Parts: sequence; C-alpha cells; structure tokens
Amino acid sequence: MAEFEKMLAANEEWARSFPGELPVRPARQVAVVACMDSRMPLFPLLGLAVGDAHVIRNAGGVITEDTIRSLTISQHLLGTREIVLVHHTNCGLQATDDTSFADLVEQATGRRPPWAARAFVDVEDDVRESMRLLRDCPYLVSREICGSVYDVATGRLKPVELA
Amino acid sequence: MAEFEKMLAANEEWARSFPGELPVRPARQVAVVACMDSRMPLFPLLGLAVGDAHVIRNAGGVITEDTIRSLTISQHLLGTREIVLVHHTNCGLQATDDTSFADLVEQATGRRPPWAARAFVDVEDDVRESMRLLRDCPYLVSREICGSVYDVATGRLKPVELA
Repeated sequence: MAEFEKMLAANEEWARSFPGELPVRPARQVAVVACMDSRMPLFPLLGLAVGDAHVIRNAGGVITEDTIRSLTISQHLLGTREIVLVHHTNCGLQATDDTSFADLVEQATGRRPPWAARAFVDVEDDVRESMRLLRDCPYLVSREICGSVYDVATGRLKPVELA
Repeated sequence: MAEFEKMLAANEEWARSFPGELPVRPARQVAVVACMDSRMPLFPLLGLAVGDAHVIRNAGGVITEDTIRSLTISQHLLGTREIVLVHHTNCGLQATDDTSFADLVEQATGRRPPWAARAFVDVEDDVRESMRLLRDCPYLVSREICGSVYDVATGRLKPVELA
C-alpha cells in the first residue's frame, strides 16, 4: 500500500490550499469520456478548472453500458449537455486483440473473461465508433458529441469528424 | 460545440510546453478508480505526475463489468499492482435512488434504462462494497486495494478500511 500512503501525504498539501466547496453540477455542462491512460492529465490538457466537467474514463475511452449509465446520470441528474471524447495514440489496446488478451488472462488466472477487452486497430475509427454508439443511445437528452485523438508524443489534441 | 472549441484552444497552450512522450506503462504501478465528479482533479489531488497511474472514472466510482475490464487490462497488459478507490461526499448518486432515476429518464426520453443507476446512501459503505467486489474478482493478479472518501468541502482524503 506504499503508493496510497504517498497519495495521502500529497493530499495533505492539496487540502492546505483548498479554496472551498463548489456546486455538484459541472459549471461548463460538459462530460468528457477518455481513456484511463496515465499520460493524460485531463484538467490541464483541456484547460478545465475544478468544477467544470464530468470526467469518465476507462480502458480505451470506449462506450460501454457503464459509460452510457454515467452519461445518462450526467445529463439527467446533473445538467451536462456536451460530450467530448478523448482517445489517444499508442494505446495499450492497440498492442493486443480480444482473443490474445482473453488467452493472457486465462493463462495467468485460470479464468477466461466473458467480456471483450475492446482492442482496436485504428484510433480515429474507434472514436467514430464511439460517436455512432452515442448518437444511437436512446437515454440521452443531448447528443452534441465531439471526438478527438490526443497525440502522446506531442501533447496535441486532434478533432475527429464522424463524416 | 462551444466548450470543445475552448478545449482545443487550451490544448494549444498545453502542447506548447509539452515535455515529450512517456512509456505506456504507469510508472507507479497504480490504478485509481474514482467518481466522475467535476470537483476531483485527481492528478494534483493525489500528487500524481503525468505517467504515474491509470485513472478509471464513472458515476459513483463504482465497480461494474467495465471497471473490471479496465483493471484487468491495467494489471495484465500494463503492469499495475495497487488499486486506489476514491469516492466522495455530496455525490449526485446520493440525491436519488435507482427507481426514481429510472422514472426520470423514462419521463424525459420515453425509454426506461435496463441498467441500475447505482445510487447509494452511505459513501463509506459504498467504498467497502467496491472493495469486496474487487477482492472477489477472479481476473485480477493483484488485490492490493485501498479505499478512500474525498471530502468536497475540505479537499481532504480519508482512508476507509474494509474491516
């Protein structure tokens, strides 16, 4: 638990200069859906201030039932209206495929996962797939969706059109 | 798309002082699972540097099949070993219940979601529930799990024991 202890110590510093409580509803009415990748600190990378936007992240930044659940709560309960997708270059999910990954987990644990890893080949295609899944989602009240790819070699965000 | 345009402009600034590419494997071998709440900028809040840790976020910071998928990829493919859970006080999911939320979505869209919102009453109990779900997950290779609650009024992180 060494890393957690370090986080608690770092949090003491954070709390010392804490400016105070903000409203639970995101000020800029945006929800960001992004990959869990460690190289994307989304607040500074997108110019977000504390309290600005919901941040939903998973392996790949893909649209799953859980992403839909989170976005539906974000819109119906907490008033967000725009959705911004952030995938990125050099993703771990481009270095495998769903069968190889299931083999890997089964070899290490004796159990084969019943869910797919959601590996992908082309990152822009994967963003467009997410945009289509959200466009067709019946539970959202707003479908203003912007897609992008973050380049981990340059720090630059590139918009992706559904076209 | 006004907010996305602002993010692209902010990203130009970020890219201008970008220090360069880092490895895809998280340096501190940690995965953080947290709520999507807009008031938790996890990198400064936990003292994380770019490249340190995977960050998985959804509504509530709860454990779903998608969280399990992301953590399994994080451990088997990208070498993380510790898991840190960050729930928080004054969560949107404490202001509703699963039935009321499904009613709300059905009234607004005409469609009732088949998945639960995962509303909860006691935040520490919800962290312990997550810890139990991860402890019993058959696909992980490491179950070093630390739970915590972030106080949105003080900025302080409080550890939660499974006990």
